[in-house]
Amino acid sequence: MGELAGIYAIMATPFDEAGRLDEASLRTLVEFELERGVHGLTILGQMGEYHKLADAERERVTAIVLEQVAGRVPVIVGTSHTGTEVVIQLSQSAQRLGAAGIMVSPPNGARGEAALLTHFQRVAASVEVPLIVQDEPVMTGVLMPPPLLARLVEAIPTLTAIKLEEPPSPQKLSQVLALTGDRVAVFGGLGGLFFLEELRRGSRGAMTGYAFPEALVEIYAAHVAGDHQRAAAVFYHHLPLIRFEAQVGLGLGIRKEILRRRGAIRTATVRSPAPAIDAQTWQELDGLLQVVAGEALPILPAARYS
Amino acid sequence: MGELAGIYAIMATPFDEAGRLDEASLRTLVEFELERGVHGLTILGQMGEYHKLADAERERVTAIVLEQVAGRVPVIVGTSHTGTEVVIQLSQSAQRLGAAGIMVSPPNGARGEAALLTHFQRVAASVEVPLIVQDEPVMTGVLMPPPLLARLVEAIPTLTAIKLEEPPSPQKLSQVLALTGDRVAVFGGLGGLFFLEELRRGSRGAMTGYAFPEALVEIYAAHVAGDHQRAAAVFYHHLPLIRFEAQVGLGLGIRKEILRRRGAIRTATVRSPAPAIDAQTWQELDGLLQVVAGEALPILPAARYS
Amino acid sequence: MGELAGIYAIMATPFDEAGRLDEASLRTLVEFELERGVHGLTILGQMGEYHKLADAERERVTAIVLEQVAGRVPVIVGTSHTGTEVVIQLSQSAQRLGAAGIMVSPPNGARGEAALLTHFQRVAASVEVPLIVQDEPVMTGVLMPPPLLARLVEAIPTLTAIKLEEPPSPQKLSQVLALTGDRVAVFGGLGGLFFLEELRRGSRGAMTGYAFPEALVEIYAAHVAGDHQRAAAVFYHHLPLIRFEAQVGLGLGIRKEILRRRGAIRTATVRSPAPAIDAQTWQELDGLLQVVAGEALPILPAARYS
Amino acid sequence: MGELAGIYAIMATPFDEAGRLDEASLRTLVEFELERGVHGLTILGQMGEYHKLADAERERVTAIVLEQVAGRVPVIVGTSHTGTEVVIQLSQSAQRLGAAGIMVSPPNGARGEAALLTHFQRVAASVEVPLIVQDEPVMTGVLMPPPLLARLVEAIPTLTAIKLEEPPSPQKLSQVLALTGDRVAVFGGLGGLFFLEELRRGSRGAMTGYAFPEALVEIYAAHVAGDHQRAAAVFYHHLPLIRFEAQVGLGLGIRKEILRRRGAIRTATVRSPAPAIDAQTWQELDGLLQVVAGEALPILPAARYS
Repeated sequence: MGELAGIYAIMATPFDEAGRLDEASLRTLVEFELERGVHGLTILGQMGEYHKLADAERERVTAIVLEQVAGRVPVIVGTSHTGTEVVIQLSQSAQRLGAAGIMVSPPNGARGEAALLTHFQRVAASVEVPLIVQDEPVMTGVLMPPPLLARLVEAIPTLTAIKLEEPPSPQKLSQVLALTGDRVAVFGGLGGLFFLEELRRGSRGAMTGYAFPEALVEIYAAHVAGDHQRAAAVFYHHLPLIRFEAQVGLGLGIRKEILRRRGAIRTATVRSPAPAIDAQTWQELDGLLQVVAGEALPILPAARYS
Repeated sequence: MGELAGIYAIMATPFDEAGRLDEASLRTLVEFELERGVHGLTILGQMGEYHKLADAERERVTAIVLEQVAGRVPVIVGTSHTGTEVVIQLSQSAQRLGAAGIMVSPPNGARGEAALLTHFQRVAASVEVPLIVQDEPVMTGVLMPPPLLARLVEAIPTLTAIKLEEPPSPQKLSQVLALTGDRVAVFGGLGGLFFLEELRRGSRGAMTGYAFPEALVEIYAAHVAGDHQRAAAVFYHHLPLIRFEAQVGLGLGIRKEILRRRGAIRTATVRSPAPAIDAQTWQELDGLLQVVAGEALPILPAARYS
Repeated sequence: MGELAGIYAIMATPFDEAGRLDEASLRTLVEFELERGVHGLTILGQMGEYHKLADAERERVTAIVLEQVAGRVPVIVGTSHTGTEVVIQLSQSAQRLGAAGIMVSPPNGARGEAALLTHFQRVAASVEVPLIVQDEPVMTGVLMPPPLLARLVEAIPTLTAIKLEEPPSPQKLSQVLALTGDRVAVFGGLGGLFFLEELRRGSRGAMTGYAFPEALVEIYAAHVAGDHQRAAAVFYHHLPLIRFEAQVGLGLGIRKEILRRRGAIRTATVRSPAPAIDAQTWQELDGLLQVVAGEALPILPAARYS
Repeated sequence: MGELAGIYAIMATPFDEAGRLDEASLRTLVEFELERGVHGLTILGQMGEYHKLADAERERVTAIVLEQVAGRVPVIVGTSHTGTEVVIQLSQSAQRLGAAGIMVSPPNGARGEAALLTHFQRVAASVEVPLIVQDEPVMTGVLMPPPLLARLVEAIPTLTAIKLEEPPSPQKLSQVLALTGDRVAVFGGLGGLFFLEELRRGSRGAMTGYAFPEALVEIYAAHVAGDHQRAAAVFYHHLPLIRFEAQVGLGLGIRKEILRRRGAIRTATVRSPAPAIDAQTWQELDGLLQVVAGEALPILPAARYS
């Protein structure tokens, strides 16, 4: 696969009004992301609602995306599940279909380093493609402190990247890198809320689902080019919306609505269970999209805050 | 289905040494349970490791059990999943295969009464067989207080039973019955640790996986016959082992080992992730099985504790 | 007390290098806040490290702040504790010392509406000053959905305000107001991350500890004056730092460091247990303080994001 | 203090009907426990409702108990608090009053090994008496796996005992002993539900609040004398009540009621917040006390369970 780096768009899974997989929108969403210059795609993460899909639907999504991408960028496939055997089945299927790597979070409620080590080792050993470990404590309830992550990296040769999502991410990123050095690529997530800090601390990029992926690409490019001023400018310009998308529970629905408005998918349907989103949230979104579009640029106050 | 009542054995899912579904053991386990007089079976609950099975495996387990039972007792099929659409798919499949009812716990992390109501309503409406709601907060992280359960019962005509597993269960059972009256059957679970108290407070029986189901059947029969002395005697006789099985995380492995020793299944394999069980636990089990068998009946101390 | 409204600064509790209460800094901090125009002070909240203070220290902080403020603004005193009787003791003491109101979060781990209702009712009945309920689920582990908050408001006449801190706050704020109308003032918290949305949805202000309280005051004033453009401009200008302060666990140390740099307190000491903060975090803070000061204003990108 | 061993009764804190400290009952409770032969007392643990007492009340309880005991047995004083500085204050006060040791659980929500190590090290260094670490994850939310406990033991010379309360305790006890050897005494807790297994695996005794401490003393003595049959007989005789007391949230109220009926304290008052206990629970208790008293000894079924 070469080295993982840059912006991996965490892909949504589009549904129709009745909640059925919308295969046409899945293809247009792939094109939308690729046109915006992302370096890779990650499908079937939490934003991909993997936990609300039947196994057959997960396989179908994987097949369609890989067919549509047709090798233009690497595609990482999320194969998380609460049982190791099923993760292995899903991972082998993903590999067969052409995945460049698999992304796996700890099984919900798994307790004890030995159980986690066994889980990730068995999964990694079941395929040839690289393993990306997703450090996601909120949904899984599993904390993986830096020393534990370092021991996983040491024990599993094909563990090539970590998607770090235990807040606050910047300090943890430095702690993980201090223990693992160049052995593993660390990516930020969490909607990009600390993307700038993560880059400056040595992240290899971001895997996240912010609905303006071109902004992430631009920030990343500016960072790589050493233009920190520009990276910051673009980041702060988008921060009001990045923050808005980061609302627990509502973020996915908001992102799908933006993707819909941008023409990437046909409906913003989120599968159940999902919280209702009220009308005022959409008005708030209207305003934020104007801000992002530069149509309602705020007048900056004179500097008085010191 | 008639009225749900009595002892529904929560069935284990047997695997071979490599973790593959052991279909032959699944059939012998069915016969083991039926020979011990249980009034029904509940498959693919937590003890059935439903969360470590692929969808196709869940369907296969359901088909085999229903074929083997061949109508001798009702079979409830656990169809819990983190996505409503998948629960519906699994429930319709279970109904097609002959399930007498479906058992569903709240999706992990679901928040808000509206989301839970929608989930259970949509699932119930998708099938004709009754819905059993499993009130299980530990794995799901979802608390359902008595008023919420009562509102679910009121809103969903086919919700005919609740499996109550929020400890402490006895008082909650009385609170739920005070709100729902005879409208719904309430069953105990939790390994039977409070089975006696639950029966006396009005439970309709138990759905649990204690590896001596004949003891639960005997306690239930004694209770129904009004012989509370005998019900208590049998219960207290088994309590040392019931308590031992209730060890968080280890209980499933212990139960499978007992089922193996009793000839019900061929191996005690638990799918990963699962905690290791040490040698001393098996020695402790040896002693407790002797106690249950009456071979090492403890000499009761003279009454001095008052 | 009149009606609660506007910006209530959640006050830090300053310590010296050895972790002892720094009474001189407590007084300079009061002056710092008042000079920046806040409408009131809230002491001994989480940011005030109330849970790391001895009872006598809590009383001492209350006495000093009330003496220093000398009636210039209302002072709300946090009297949360895991036991109702102690909350009552602390609340009566706060009232005696001149508190304009008490702020109380649910006791950690309290379960059941009845227990919460009893707790807040007994506390409210023990004093004459108003009760502000803090809806804080992260530290307490207690979720209070809008209907429960509405029942508390209905049952407790002196419950005059709610500090809302269950994310995402904007939608919950609308839901609470829909149930309570004008009966109760709802304030935002959470570091102000959704201050703008909260104001537009009807919050009466914010109770939060952002280290540039004058910005919150300015945003609030612009909002009240109907100048939404200006409110947004100031808010977005500060958002990079507001976001930075919102880092779980680190936020308090960062805020205290800013307060130290601004001359409000003498040391940034946080009492133990507290996570260590690394050197790079301070470099990140340097950059963000320049942004806030307007010395490193980012060049906004031309509008291309649509 | 010599070596810690045997049965340390976890003492309740008695209140009068109005919830005020009942000093007379505190003294009669001390005598009750000592008459039943316990080897030591542990005050101000969770069962002592330490988290519902003001600091001054904690000091008062300590002073009275130490005065009443007058050196007849060692007294361990619980000095847990969410702030390290306050634990130090409470610990030094306990030492001054004559405590034989202090018992400290991790501060609620503390995260990271470094923070825990600092906490316990600073506390241990602040006094000369031994430190007993309470491994209690349910109320604190802090998991301490065996390697972490071993590192605490290694780093802190005066850490002489661990009270182990993460279920399932038997296996964890063996894991901790395998890492620490004889360096530290490990005690069981959890109401004694696994007391027998813990003893056989090498626990030095139990620190728990079962309301028939003489039974624990008898089991311990039989175990030490090598009479495992008798130890088991007494344990199983009490198991129905031990289990009943172990009901989450209700256990404390049940224990206080038993202590009241046995004449140890004047009222069973539990401080708020506490769940209500219904009338049927008291009827259940009546029956169980008869069982314990041998007045309603269950007729054991003939051995048929194999």
